[in-house]
Amino acid sequence: MKEILMGIGTAGLKPSGNPDVLLLYFPTEFPAHFIFTKNRIKSGSVEYSQKALEESGGYVRAILINSGNANCMAGDTVGTAEEIASYISKMFDIRREYVLIFSTGIIGEPLPVERVTKAVDDACKILEPLDLKRASEVISTTDSFPKYDFVKYDRLEVFGFAKGAGMIHPNMATMLAFIFTNADMDPGYIKELTKRVGDVTFNSITVDGCMSTNDSFGIISSGDIRADNKRLEDAVTEVAERLAKKIVEDGEGATKVIKVVVKGAKDDLMAKDMAERVAVSQLVKTAVHGCDPNWGRIISALGTSPYEFDPKRVEIRIGDIILYKGEPVYNRKDARGYMMANKEILIEVNLNMGNAMWIYYSSDLTCDYVRLNSEYTT
Amino acid sequence: MKEILMGIGTAGLKPSGNPDVLLLYFPTEFPAHFIFTKNRIKSGSVEYSQKALEESGGYVRAILINSGNANCMAGDTVGTAEEIASYISKMFDIRREYVLIFSTGIIGEPLPVERVTKAVDDACKILEPLDLKRASEVISTTDSFPKYDFVKYDRLEVFGFAKGAGMIHPNMATMLAFIFTNADMDPGYIKELTKRVGDVTFNSITVDGCMSTNDSFGIISSGDIRADNKRLEDAVTEVAERLAKKIVEDGEGATKVIKVVVKGAKDDLMAKDMAERVAVSQLVKTAVHGCDPNWGRIISALGTSPYEFDPKRVEIRIGDIILYKGEPVYNRKDARGYMMANKEILIEVNLNMGNAMWIYYSSDLTCDYVRLNSEYTT
Repeated sequence: MKEILMGIGTAGLKPSGNPDVLLLYFPTEFPAHFIFTKNRIKSGSVEYSQKALEESGGYVRAILINSGNANCMAGDTVGTAEEIASYISKMFDIRREYVLIFSTGIIGEPLPVERVTKAVDDACKILEPLDLKRASEVISTTDSFPKYDFVKYDRLEVFGFAKGAGMIHPNMATMLAFIFTNADMDPGYIKELTKRVGDVTFNSITVDGCMSTNDSFGIISSGDIRADNKRLEDAVTEVAERLAKKIVEDGEGATKVIKVVVKGAKDDLMAKDMAERVAVSQLVKTAVHGCDPNWGRIISALGTSPYEFDPKRVEIRIGDIILYKGEPVYNRKDARGYMMANKEILIEVNLNMGNAMWIYYSSDLTCDYVRLNSEYTT
Repeated sequence: MKEILMGIGTAGLKPSGNPDVLLLYFPTEFPAHFIFTKNRIKSGSVEYSQKALEESGGYVRAILINSGNANCMAGDTVGTAEEIASYISKMFDIRREYVLIFSTGIIGEPLPVERVTKAVDDACKILEPLDLKRASEVISTTDSFPKYDFVKYDRLEVFGFAKGAGMIHPNMATMLAFIFTNADMDPGYIKELTKRVGDVTFNSITVDGCMSTNDSFGIISSGDIRADNKRLEDAVTEVAERLAKKIVEDGEGATKVIKVVVKGAKDDLMAKDMAERVAVSQLVKTAVHGCDPNWGRIISALGTSPYEFDPKRVEIRIGDIILYKGEPVYNRKDARGYMMANKEILIEVNLNMGNAMWIYYSSDLTCDYVRLNSEYTT
């Protein structure tokens, strides 16, 4: 496998003074694709990287990620990202569009270019093989644990790291996730795959329903081996799903992970819409926190969907305990026992209309969430 | 003014044992229109009343409102509403479609028809002129205070009562609001007016973003006097807005009312969409709770809208203190002072694109909200 190198620097962007600049360097152009936040308010780093990826035709040689500052809503943030990318492109003598920039942290404060480029200098002094755990730590903001994962099937390797804990602490928001594989892919295929995998993983999680200005997820291929497409997609999805779930687990103040499965829908769009409505409902999230098997709140959340369904055909289970099947089934006590005994709570809805299914992860809504997000910013 | 009579009964639907059945009786057919919840899961009372209003061509003679049971998701709930309406129609010898039924309370429990009709008998024993405060008390569930209001301009009278405190206590949800006027209106005009007024008042408030199965708002005209349309609409809007605001004030666990004003939008739809995004944002709601003038969360919420806007032209004020004007303005301290000193917090966004404006009311998100909604149902 072609080596992925990393270097670490400190630009003093985190209040803790911990390392906050991560540089990734690849020996050749690696095919890559990223999907970015759909928020209209975007970090200059996001805007720059989106454009660079287009200009390079989907190839990358170096990635710089800074933590502690979002490079967003503070003057010419695209220019700032360009300056840093230019610096790195000169340093390695590579084209600027082969350098991507990602940022996460506070909004509205200018990113100090000179401090970042100095940290890049330091990072380059010791380039070592990618350490997933360390990489996650450097790019973390309010995360309470590092997020990384990997799978290996015969010669196929997929691994990645991420940061994110809900859009929490005053704008110290953002989900960033990077997945690597030694499977050979062309830029066209990697683009499709990123969209498809992102849709069922990072775009199917919610902590507080808020969308950050910097969210990014990408797949990067070091292109060594040929892999079966189906198998590759499964492996990438597996790693992405695990990383996404870790972000939910680390959701601000969360004590439980909620897995919402909607099946029997007419198509994927319908399944996703309904799963999302249950997953984001504050009433469902507080009910789970209180171990209350409140199927009324679940079906009421389903009812807000624009998709038509027949309540008489709906089945609702919590764990494997049926609570509603066209009419109420009185299993509250068992369901409550299941909810008290488990940290991951399964809410399963069967619409009995078709074959489409969607899984959405969420976390419970707690007092700690409110407390942490009510604290004064500065 | 033609008299509106009311009677009160007790069907034992509230855990407190307090009166829970309110009967309104009108001496002639009054033109009326109602708008109902858009939730696909609907109370049988909502489905019945929707149909009855159509069949009567927009006229009403009697209204029954029961509290403590939503008549929703518990067998043939439409049949239940029909039975009660039939009973009342026979009692007063009026056509059944002139009787409307509204319910609020727990979902999934059958509404006991006989206990309700017995309470109707009791209610009919003493019919007295409508007492707004008492009416609101009888139909209340988790409300902490009765909600009623009135205005009088020369001979024009507009008055109403409501219940609702966010979709709170396990399915003890629902917003119900009834506004009366002595202005003469035909059913066609009253229909338009209900929609227009509902849109800018009861459909522009949020406590937790959850939509109940029973929400209803209607205008009923006793048709005595001729009033100028503009003046009438202003008066009805005034009463509706005050009732809507009381519901937000009574939002579960709320300590502050948030008034979100978006102006300078291209059209009403855009203004409403953007105001709603700020009003429902959990991060904005927690920031207000913590008196944190966090404009980053506000602009980030605006950015999730599908409508295009130029962040460089945006102005954000909290109270009358400017915090963002194409770039950050450092007035945090003043803004924090304003937030600490006031119970109603104004968030004003000017998009500087056009002349459309929308006002949306919301409440802060507090630990008490979480606590109250995490409690076990039964």
